[in-house]
Amino acid sequence: ETEEIVVIPGDGIGQEVVPAAQKVLDAVGNFEYVEADAGDAVKAETGEALPQETYDLVAEADATLFGAAGETAADVILPLRTAVDSFVNVRPAKAYPGVDALRPETDLVFLRENTEGVYSGHEDRLSDDLSTLTRVVTTSASERLAEFACDYVDNTSFQIAHKANVMRETDGRFRDAVVSVAEENGVETEEVLMDAFATKVCLDPTQFDVVVCPNLAGDVLSDLAAGLVGGLGLLPSANLGPERGLFEPVHGTAPDIAGEGIANPSATILSAAMLLDYLGYEDEAADVRTAVESVLEDGPRTADLGGDASTEDVTEAVVSRLE
Amino acid sequence: ETEEIVVIPGDGIGQEVVPAAQKVLDAVGNFEYVEADAGDAVKAETGEALPQETYDLVAEADATLFGAAGETAADVILPLRTAVDSFVNVRPAKAYPGVDALRPETDLVFLRENTEGVYSGHEDRLSDDLSTLTRVVTTSASERLAEFACDYVDNTSFQIAHKANVMRETDGRFRDAVVSVAEENGVETEEVLMDAFATKVCLDPTQFDVVVCPNLAGDVLSDLAAGLVGGLGLLPSANLGPERGLFEPVHGTAPDIAGEGIANPSATILSAAMLLDYLGYEDEAADVRTAVESVLEDGPRTADLGGDASTEDVTEAVVSRLE
Ligand SMILES: CC(C)[C@H](C(=O)O)[C@@H](O)C(=O)O
Ligand SMILES: CC(C)[C@H](C(=O)O)[C@@H](O)C(=O)O
Repeated sequence: ETEEIVVIPGDGIGQEVVPAAQKVLDAVGNFEYVEADAGDAVKAETGEALPQETYDLVAEADATLFGAAGETAADVILPLRTAVDSFVNVRPAKAYPGVDALRPETDLVFLRENTEGVYSGHEDRLSDDLSTLTRVVTTSASERLAEFACDYVDNTSFQIAHKANVMRETDGRFRDAVVSVAEENGVETEEVLMDAFATKVCLDPTQFDVVVCPNLAGDVLSDLAAGLVGGLGLLPSANLGPERGLFEPVHGTAPDIAGEGIANPSATILSAAMLLDYLGYEDEAADVRTAVESVLEDGPRTADLGGDASTEDVTEAVVSRLE
Repeated sequence: ETEEIVVIPGDGIGQEVVPAAQKVLDAVGNFEYVEADAGDAVKAETGEALPQETYDLVAEADATLFGAAGETAADVILPLRTAVDSFVNVRPAKAYPGVDALRPETDLVFLRENTEGVYSGHEDRLSDDLSTLTRVVTTSASERLAEFACDYVDNTSFQIAHKANVMRETDGRFRDAVVSVAEENGVETEEVLMDAFATKVCLDPTQFDVVVCPNLAGDVLSDLAAGLVGGLGLLPSANLGPERGLFEPVHGTAPDIAGEGIANPSATILSAAMLLDYLGYEDEAADVRTAVESVLEDGPRTADLGGDASTEDVTEAVVSRLE
């Protein structure tokens, strides 16, 4: 049986790390790829950062692996999240043995609401002096996220980061909805204000494990956690919907090193592992993770980790540990 | 000449650290204090976390020193910021020699917009499922902040952290207004997305020095910086308006140690130093800072810094180094 995956390398190092991840996928399964365009380059050519064709492919595919987009990132990634009806962005932030980290004990997963909050897209210019943005929070989206979270933690416990002391009605709604779903499922929750979370996670990241949060909180706090594990080069993510998923490294296009063949492919390979998990290839996903971790520990390293290996060297090392 | 200062100890350790800071103020100048109530305790007694009398005193005073409030923090501090027409929250985050810090090289100041953004207070429950919050950004508030920032950096340069790639109209307005005031003043600016800031400041805080940001971004990113310098126990802040100021430690009521006389008074003493600066006692402010730094380096330490000194021990040590 062959599984079809849409791949969108995009801009910059996306062109290097997505093919690297495909090599790893090929080492563990039988996949067919449909390649699609998105980002600055296709915009320069066609005027559109996200061609309708790409959107349609992603909206039909079981799984998409996305690399990175430059200036047009928001124009690409936000509609693509909609295309897969992604109600949760899963963002693990884990430090790896052998990789310099500010807090090597960090091992967190953010479950970020992925459809609303300040991302709802309603902004108005009301006068020459005044603009507004309508931040949207619904009980239904919050509950959907909470149900996923309960399942994700296997009905144990999770933390909720929010700012309901200021955004009482909206984050209050979010908090209440998440807590009540958790209670129904016998899941324990702990609340933390998002500003306090920022301090606390620096002081001791082991206080947290799975952190459920509104959209912008998840954006910022997961990037903060990236800082604690040593940067964006290792962080994968999954935008999950009920029927499809979109997988992407958290890093961007890295224009300073694009085209040189020296980008670290680990975040994209780990995103591919999340894709494997989502498609039900759990053993293969685990194998890929183990291989990446083992290469991070004692294999060739790209420049961002202080080595001088190429993208290909690292990819080959991962593939060889899968054999 | 005697200067009048409103003091609001508030709840928890506020009751201990505000009197400590008053002792330090008394060591460098001639002040008269008007004490006022706010917080959980006065709410329990009177039903109001912020009595009108307190509001009026703060709205008339040149300077107010505030300790902390518990559950009612938002009900107290947000109206008090309005009372002083505070358009900027100045939040230095500096690591001190002798104090354990995750990033000892951290030395940043956040200039946080202090009136609008998601703090504008307009929320609506539109249906059983849906609530909204109206995030407000004006050119006028952004320009006022930017003018302060130009002055603060002595017409050199500052950074702007925002999320204008998603909040295009509102943070776009903020960014454009700040950049244009900076340009008029020959001040260089560098922009960074607030999520990217969270990663970058962990990796290397020395890339930043003065960071201008919208309200919630300033809230979260300054608390993140607190994590890098070793916690909230040392961080002062100033809410500045055109004619008055409200000065407060960034920490809260610390209910676990309240009443024991072991709270670290440094953040409040450093807030008092910002108050001195604001009132024009710049030499005295500098002396207080030097004294605090010297005690942090080799003086008695409270439990949060690994010592067993009391609030009084630390306060006396600071006072004695001022003599
Ligand atoms: C590119 C941008 C719109 C996006 C976001 O804010 O969600 C990015 O920061 C991310 O976290 O994937
Ligand atoms: C208590 C709360 C309303 C306040 C804020 O969000 O501004 C606090 O976190 C702060 O930063 O002073």
